[in-house]
Amino acid sequence: MKKYIAEFIGTFSMIFCGTGAMTINEVTGGEVTHVGIAITWGLIVMAMIYAFGETSGAHFNPAVTIAFAYAKKFSWKEVPKYIVAQILGAFLASLILWFLFPASENLGATIPTVDVWRAFVLELLLTFFLMVVIINVSTGSKEMGIIAGIAVGAVVLLEAMFAGPITNASMNPARSIAPNVVSGNLQHLWMYILAPILGAILAVISCKLIKDDNCCDTPNC
Amino acid sequence: MKKYIAEFIGTFSMIFCGTGAMTINEVTGGEVTHVGIAITWGLIVMAMIYAFGETSGAHFNPAVTIAFAYAKKFSWKEVPKYIVAQILGAFLASLILWFLFPASENLGATIPTVDVWRAFVLELLLTFFLMVVIINVSTGSKEMGIIAGIAVGAVVLLEAMFAGPITNASMNPARSIAPNVVSGNLQHLWMYILAPILGAILAVISCKLIKDDNCCDTPNC
Amino acid sequence: MKKYIAEFIGTFSMIFCGTGAMTINEVTGGEVTHVGIAITWGLIVMAMIYAFGETSGAHFNPAVTIAFAYAKKFSWKEVPKYIVAQILGAFLASLILWFLFPASENLGATIPTVDVWRAFVLELLLTFFLMVVIINVSTGSKEMGIIAGIAVGAVVLLEAMFAGPITNASMNPARSIAPNVVSGNLQHLWMYILAPILGAILAVISCKLIKDDNCCDTPNC
Amino acid sequence: MKKYIAEFIGTFSMIFCGTGAMTINEVTGGEVTHVGIAITWGLIVMAMIYAFGETSGAHFNPAVTIAFAYAKKFSWKEVPKYIVAQILGAFLASLILWFLFPASENLGATIPTVDVWRAFVLELLLTFFLMVVIINVSTGSKEMGIIAGIAVGAVVLLEAMFAGPITNASMNPARSIAPNVVSGNLQHLWMYILAPILGAILAVISCKLIKDDNCCDTPNC
Repeated sequence: MKKYIAEFIGTFSMIFCGTGAMTINEVTGGEVTHVGIAITWGLIVMAMIYAFGETSGAHFNPAVTIAFAYAKKFSWKEVPKYIVAQILGAFLASLILWFLFPASENLGATIPTVDVWRAFVLELLLTFFLMVVIINVSTGSKEMGIIAGIAVGAVVLLEAMFAGPITNASMNPARSIAPNVVSGNLQHLWMYILAPILGAILAVISCKLIKDDNCCDTPNC
Repeated sequence: MKKYIAEFIGTFSMIFCGTGAMTINEVTGGEVTHVGIAITWGLIVMAMIYAFGETSGAHFNPAVTIAFAYAKKFSWKEVPKYIVAQILGAFLASLILWFLFPASENLGATIPTVDVWRAFVLELLLTFFLMVVIINVSTGSKEMGIIAGIAVGAVVLLEAMFAGPITNASMNPARSIAPNVVSGNLQHLWMYILAPILGAILAVISCKLIKDDNCCDTPNC
Repeated sequence: MKKYIAEFIGTFSMIFCGTGAMTINEVTGGEVTHVGIAITWGLIVMAMIYAFGETSGAHFNPAVTIAFAYAKKFSWKEVPKYIVAQILGAFLASLILWFLFPASENLGATIPTVDVWRAFVLELLLTFFLMVVIINVSTGSKEMGIIAGIAVGAVVLLEAMFAGPITNASMNPARSIAPNVVSGNLQHLWMYILAPILGAILAVISCKLIKDDNCCDTPNC
Repeated sequence: MKKYIAEFIGTFSMIFCGTGAMTINEVTGGEVTHVGIAITWGLIVMAMIYAFGETSGAHFNPAVTIAFAYAKKFSWKEVPKYIVAQILGAFLASLILWFLFPASENLGATIPTVDVWRAFVLELLLTFFLMVVIINVSTGSKEMGIIAGIAVGAVVLLEAMFAGPITNASMNPARSIAPNVVSGNLQHLWMYILAPILGAILAVISCKLIKDDNCCDTPNC
């Protein structure tokens, strides 16, 4: 049970701070700034990895959970429980933000500014880069474990920074589902669920080309 | 005595730099920028944790001190001495800033821009996130100790970044008492004392759900 | 083969995110901001070093590869293979960006804003600073290895920050060749190939003055 | 000889990048931004500490060198040689910037925007905070050594961020002497030499109150 609570609190904290930054930026007319939003996303991911990494592995992201299972580094039967915990945490965050900032229209929902196929390619690549870092630092030497939170937080920060203006840099179905449902932005939600999962799986496949033995626990990975 | 001096110098440095950034931003018409203020807060907390963590535990915050005592990880009879050292350090910082920048009206005081109950909920959650990270990194593996300053500084930075425009992201009674008293902004001070203490205690309670044995030293925690 | 794939994916990721930040900033009229572009460059370099450092050494830069060979820390016969992998990765990044953002004129190409000899001196110095850090952290104590990605990423970040407005802070022939060729900005390309290589070699020579035994494996270094 | 070369190259790199950021910001009409200048200062200090810390101790600052000698942690007869290397490195940086950017008036010189006594108090406090971190992380546990560059770079970054608009946050006589002499801004130079030295010595004295045995090697420290 402890690991599900860790995923719940971690995802809640991450979505509250990250989409909270976007919400507060919206209602204050830009006071947080785009740079500030990206920094908020990256640092809350890093902090939550250091808080909960040793308890649950600190996924906070259904695409990461599925990709770890695909890589045989995580049990498939744990996948639904992790995803439920992540989505519940995300919804709690969006609902509290909706109560605190009723003036906000989007509550940090992810809305693309280019056509949906370009957005699809970009979200797929963003999650590919994220999962390349996650899978390689989690299979590296032990010292790498200390630095994992910094490396993963940095990828989230930089991707929110450069791709935020195009797709809001979701890379995470739970991160899109909660604010998009609560704020009623459902049109492109399928893309924000599909593209991250495909990108994360692609990263696991690429990892096999680089580290044969360490990337997964069984040879047919 | 050494640990009280460490808390005094650490809190003095933190409040001088953090509220100094807000004060200089005020008197120069925004030259530090909001992003610059948030970065200043996060990095001074991180630097002071690395300077004084091994001497006093680097609390610099009455809410953190009380929550550690509540978690049975810190002696209750030390609590008043720590809080006195923290508040004296904070007042020294506010008084020097008042001497250096007489043109400043607020001296970095915390003033909410939403109604007080929304501000209360937000400050409670901000301190909850902060203490979740503090309590989990301080009870994790030994290697985590090296990274603790980075994780805690990052939370302060990101919370000042996204919540600054709403409540100034105090999370710390000492941080609010000194500049609010010296600048005469007493109206909402009770909220900035109560909400952080409740949020920090809530984090300790949540920690019990995740790490039964490590979160505190006695079973009735 | 694994190390060439690591160099390919690492350089692809770096160029996609870094020049992607410049491209998206161009097509959105400055939403990423100059500060955001510099942060993107620094953090993607850091993240890719942590992802691939143990596989390929994480060069992602022909000037670094040549300088390591000059320092006798890398085999000369590996140099062409590494450079091909790096340039292919960079071209893939530029071509995908060209497909995603057809409205972009420059695709993150490096274009100097001062006369070419001043730009030459600046690019030479920028790569000198970068290689000074790389060569010294890679020959320091073992603990330094953990921090190497942070130190090298920080140099890229700060140099993109301060020198970006003058030369776009290339420091890397592969980083200039791909976007400059795909966007048709060929005029000063020779300078962006020559200056980084000279600057990186100069750093290796300077290292000999500081660490006689560790800087290279043979005495005639 | 190696350590003097390390101090020379380290101080040259630091002053070139830091005052280069201010110079390029001046000649481009603000493109680097104030936040960008502060980030440049902090990260170049951090990177140079990781590059040269094990060779020379990475002072790059006469005030730090004098304070370490005062703390009996550094030989007094080495002090003049270190200071000469630091000042030569700083002058080389200012002269190259003067050649590259003839349109710049200030070349990153430190010029206070408040009256000189207020600036004196602020520079003294800034260097006090800097030296408090340096002396405490350099006398802490061995693991702290890995993090030292991050902690010290962070203090430089945050102080440049919040105090830059008032005194340009020198904290370093060499950093002020070179650009102020080359650009002809000599009026307040005495203050930028005296205040940092006093502030750094004050930090050593404060350290004695906190860590009796570790702060210096002899009891009369």
